[in-house]
Amino acid sequence: MQTLLDQIQPLNAQALQNALERQNQLTKPPKSLGKLETLGIRLAGILGTEKPEIKNPVAIVCAGDHGVCEEGVSAFPASVTPLMVLNFLASGAAVNAIARTVGAKVQVINAGVNADLPDHPALVNTPVSKGTRNLRLESALTRKEAEQAVLLGAEVARQAIQAGAGILVPGEMGIGNTTPAAAITARMLDLDPAQVTGRGTGISDEGLAHKIQVIADALGRKASDNQDPLGVLADLGGLEIAAMTGVMLAGAAHRVPVVIDGFIAGSAALIAAALSPLAAQYFFASHQSVEIGHIRQLIHLGLEPLLNLDMRLGEGTGGVLCVPILQAAASVLKNMATFAEAGIG
Amino acid sequence: MQTLLDQIQPLNAQALQNALERQNQLTKPPKSLGKLETLGIRLAGILGTEKPEIKNPVAIVCAGDHGVCEEGVSAFPASVTPLMVLNFLASGAAVNAIARTVGAKVQVINAGVNADLPDHPALVNTPVSKGTRNLRLESALTRKEAEQAVLLGAEVARQAIQAGAGILVPGEMGIGNTTPAAAITARMLDLDPAQVTGRGTGISDEGLAHKIQVIADALGRKASDNQDPLGVLADLGGLEIAAMTGVMLAGAAHRVPVVIDGFIAGSAALIAAALSPLAAQYFFASHQSVEIGHIRQLIHLGLEPLLNLDMRLGEGTGGVLCVPILQAAASVLKNMATFAEAGIG
Repeated sequence: MQTLLDQIQPLNAQALQNALERQNQLTKPPKSLGKLETLGIRLAGILGTEKPEIKNPVAIVCAGDHGVCEEGVSAFPASVTPLMVLNFLASGAAVNAIARTVGAKVQVINAGVNADLPDHPALVNTPVSKGTRNLRLESALTRKEAEQAVLLGAEVARQAIQAGAGILVPGEMGIGNTTPAAAITARMLDLDPAQVTGRGTGISDEGLAHKIQVIADALGRKASDNQDPLGVLADLGGLEIAAMTGVMLAGAAHRVPVVIDGFIAGSAALIAAALSPLAAQYFFASHQSVEIGHIRQLIHLGLEPLLNLDMRLGEGTGGVLCVPILQAAASVLKNMATFAEAGIG
Repeated sequence: MQTLLDQIQPLNAQALQNALERQNQLTKPPKSLGKLETLGIRLAGILGTEKPEIKNPVAIVCAGDHGVCEEGVSAFPASVTPLMVLNFLASGAAVNAIARTVGAKVQVINAGVNADLPDHPALVNTPVSKGTRNLRLESALTRKEAEQAVLLGAEVARQAIQAGAGILVPGEMGIGNTTPAAAITARMLDLDPAQVTGRGTGISDEGLAHKIQVIADALGRKASDNQDPLGVLADLGGLEIAAMTGVMLAGAAHRVPVVIDGFIAGSAALIAAALSPLAAQYFFASHQSVEIGHIRQLIHLGLEPLLNLDMRLGEGTGGVLCVPILQAAASVLKNMATFAEAGIG
């Protein structure tokens, strides 16, 4: 793990400077492309060139089950997790439909699903376990399990990058996973559970009050603190959240931009950024989720969402949808003519 | 013109209903894709199928010059208009860079540029004139010129659709054209010039005050009223604005979705929607422009912008950037599995 963290370096200052100057020479009024210009500059800093290009987007959907489902925190039964994995593999899920339009590959990691999954070329089927323990009552994972899941995500990301992935979108599936995500967010940001807990896939008012209580009980065990992010990840869990953390860290380590999807991805990003403060410079927030804790995560990470379409699905759907915006931001720097080249001014 | 307007029909009610039902059967929590779901339903109504698909995006960039430039309303000289047309044809402009990432074709119409332009396969070079008259002093166009430019845009759009275009993005280039756009918006929406006039490509405080006065003078001639949209178009002008109006009407007439870019496109859309109230159902607003009159246009048209990235460039840049979002909205309906198909629930 430390090897991975040590690989994460600052953005390329020269490329940032060159890209900033180039933006002002391109055939457009200064700053007229708004945030697209600052996005492009950051991509230049990540890729180390003032003419960045983003090819071969890959969504890495991490799946895991949650012992806390026995508390009745989700509108869907836990048995839906493996069925949705099969749906990803059959290209029938929302992330597949959106990935198809942006030319992204969808890869799935079984980080800890409570079912035996079939072999499939798009599935990395080496789960850490069959799911977490009930975080209301005990630590969801051991420290070793958490680290193993982080390294699993990081290794899959490394292989994807080696095969040419130019941008990574960590996504997730895990019935019940807004509960650990809210618990992690509350602990990492020192907030009350009610400030970060939403309705997930769609629970009632009563269900929401119960979910907040479950998270309060988990935090009340006081088994972790936010100076030890890996400890928080183990305590409050989520094998798919840990695997996403690994994907994010590997992206930063290999200087590949990472799109942070919604609330679950945001909780993984909080852990990643706490493990390596430089990592967040490689992250882009795709959309503002309807989940109330999401905006607090983004503010903490210093990220501004690109889309506000009232999405709350997860899977990496928002992240994949943002890929063309980041590709366009890069293309402006790479492909536009300067005023001098166009003979203007 | 009347033939074109008569072709515009309501959305397909059965397809709207089927798409609404289908959204609730797909493998995702109800409404979890937010606005992407309502966008998809409207696309279904436009295309007449609950499994819509959007292929072959085409940006149609309409160019024209403006007599009002002699009043000093722009930060750039009018000579930049033809240079930017050459830049589009050489694929060096922002709209080209963004179109490249979304797989859109860029076509250019010379609707009234004050220069002789070379033949080029991507240029329709049949201008109505060499530009408008100074709208501060007199009507920018005759009624016949305005209609001719509308029909030019409509014909180019029709041919693009016949060649397979599945979505149209009217864009524009015309130094000085935020002035006619603001004048049209003020007249059509009964607003004061100051409420709809912004800095365009970047004029000073003093320049802005002057621009507002120029527009007030133009409106003060009282040569048109908003019950006669073609009269307003002729009076306050813009050959490229008229051509964009034609592109928009042809999209609606041929049941092809049209992405409305920024403030200039919005002024064309106001004219189009006034000529045919049904037309706006075929329109999607790409982004919220920094130009202050833009949001008033969108409210009037009943359109909500998809992106808010502080863009203000025009050319169709925001519109092209939104194409993947609309393609994704369609793909969700076309390509996702239902719960029944995935064996869930």
